[in-house]
Formats: sequence, structure tokens, C-alpha cells
Amino acid sequence: MKNEMKPITLDDIAVGDRYLSREFPLDTAQIKDFASNFDPQPFHLDETAAAQSFFGGLAASGWHTAAMTMRLMVESVPFAGGLIGAGVEISWPRPTRPGDILRTESTILDIVPSQSRPDRGIVTLQTDTFNQNGEQLQKLVSKLLVFRRGAD
Amino acid sequence: MKNEMKPITLDDIAVGDRYLSREFPLDTAQIKDFASNFDPQPFHLDETAAAQSFFGGLAASGWHTAAMTMRLMVESVPFAGGLIGAGVEISWPRPTRPGDILRTESTILDIVPSQSRPDRGIVTLQTDTFNQNGEQLQKLVSKLLVFRRGAD
Repeated sequence: MKNEMKPITLDDIAVGDRYLSREFPLDTAQIKDFASNFDPQPFHLDETAAAQSFFGGLAASGWHTAAMTMRLMVESVPFAGGLIGAGVEISWPRPTRPGDILRTESTILDIVPSQSRPDRGIVTLQTDTFNQNGEQLQKLVSKLLVFRRGAD
Repeated sequence: MKNEMKPITLDDIAVGDRYLSREFPLDTAQIKDFASNFDPQPFHLDETAAAQSFFGGLAASGWHTAAMTMRLMVESVPFAGGLIGAGVEISWPRPTRPGDILRTESTILDIVPSQSRPDRGIVTLQTDTFNQNGEQLQKLVSKLLVFRRGAD
């Protein structure tokens, strides 16, 4: 478990290393604000419409959950040079709701040094997002570009 | 090519159907605003720091590109009951930049009726996001829950 924010490189990490975030409280106004900008569907904007929808009540956009997860990752996964994603896979096992308090657990699944560029590698990182009841809201698997010590 | 917004169901679609969005202009202020909320890394917030980074200049968060893509999908892909995602895969072939004008092309790749729930199915939709020069900024493949006619 590593929570310190000293920048780390490809040389400092191992498969299985884990990074835990702080908690991120979410309220109705944030859900509606994000949705009005980026995902203006009734079940993200209006309690009455949401109650009659597939979600059975107001739910955050999955993209909002992803964006909040990124905020928590930036604060908790201290790769030198930053978090630079080449690609991701996401699933949302359950909706994110008003009043949820989000937190993330990020675990290194794989580390592949580049053959052609010896100063870098690709790290596969799984980031699970939970609410305050330990229910999983999102599973994210990211391919991240990570540099070696002294690469910059 | 279908741009009309009459709601459509699982019974109305076929593999290969395409949906084109409007254009979405992006400026520096929007990039910094999203990043300050959700992805506060120097290459998304500060031109000078960005110039010296991997990106070589200010770049939008990939999650911002994803969020803008969702906005364009909501406006252009008229599934009855809305766009309800079970999971997605994303890659970002190149950074999104200030001044880019985004648009999306969404294509139905696969349609799988549910065995257990006859009122619905899972549709695989590929959404490519381009800038005004036709350069691809993002590839998104979504698994969406789509209902049959009269399901609600």
C-alpha cells in the first residue's frame, strides 16, 4: 500500500502494488451539473423522470463516475511525468447515486518495458471505484505510459 | 446515415447503421475548466508546463474528450429509453487540442437480443471522434442496453 506522493518511475514499481485514494463526496447538484454539460439525459437530470427510468432514481453519468475516478487517481497514483493513458476499459456494475462517497483502489496488474524506447514502458493499472458501503461502482483497466528513472 | 431524432428501438436497427453528430468547438478555457475539476495535471492546465511535457503543448484530458463525445452521442443516437452503457473500451490515438472542432460518427457493430429478457438486447456501437482536419482523437466501443418496441 503506497499513499505517499513522491514521484515514482518504472524502476520503482512491481505487479501488485496498490494505491488508495481519499474520499470524494458527491451530491445531487454535481450530478446535474455534469450531466447538463456532457450527458443531458432525463435519468441524470430530473428525479421524477429518473424514478420512472431503468435506473429507478437519479443516477450520475458513467462518464461523471469516470471523471471523479480520474481525479482520485491523479491524487493517489504518483507516476513521474503524470498519468498518461493510451487506452482503457470500463464497466459500471451499479449506478453512482447522490450522497455516494467515492474512493478508489488502484492495483498494478502488468508492467511491460518498451522494446523500441528503453526510457519507458506500459503499465496496466486496475482502478476499482467504491462507495461508502463498499459497493463497486466502476471497474477501470488503464494502459498507462510510465517512464524510467532519469528519462526526463 | 440517420440523423433524425425519432426514438428507435432494437426492432428498428441493423448492423452498419450510422449516426453523425453536429460539430462541437473546444477552446482553452473549457480544457482548463474540465481539468481543474477532474484531471488536474500540468499538461491539461498550463501552456508552459504542457510545452515541456510528453504532449508538447496544451492537451485536453482524455476524459474530457470522452465526455464531449457522450454529449454528441446523446444528441445524435436516438435510442428509445436513452443511452445506457454497460461497459466501454476507449483509445486515444492523438491528443485533443484547443481550437479543435469535434464531431462523432457512431456505427452499429453488433446486435444481440437477450435470451432471458425478451424486451431488450445489447448493441455494440463504435463511436469515432474526429477533429476538423479529419484526424481521429478517440475510438470508443460501447455495449449499450437497447429496448424493443413497446418495452416501456
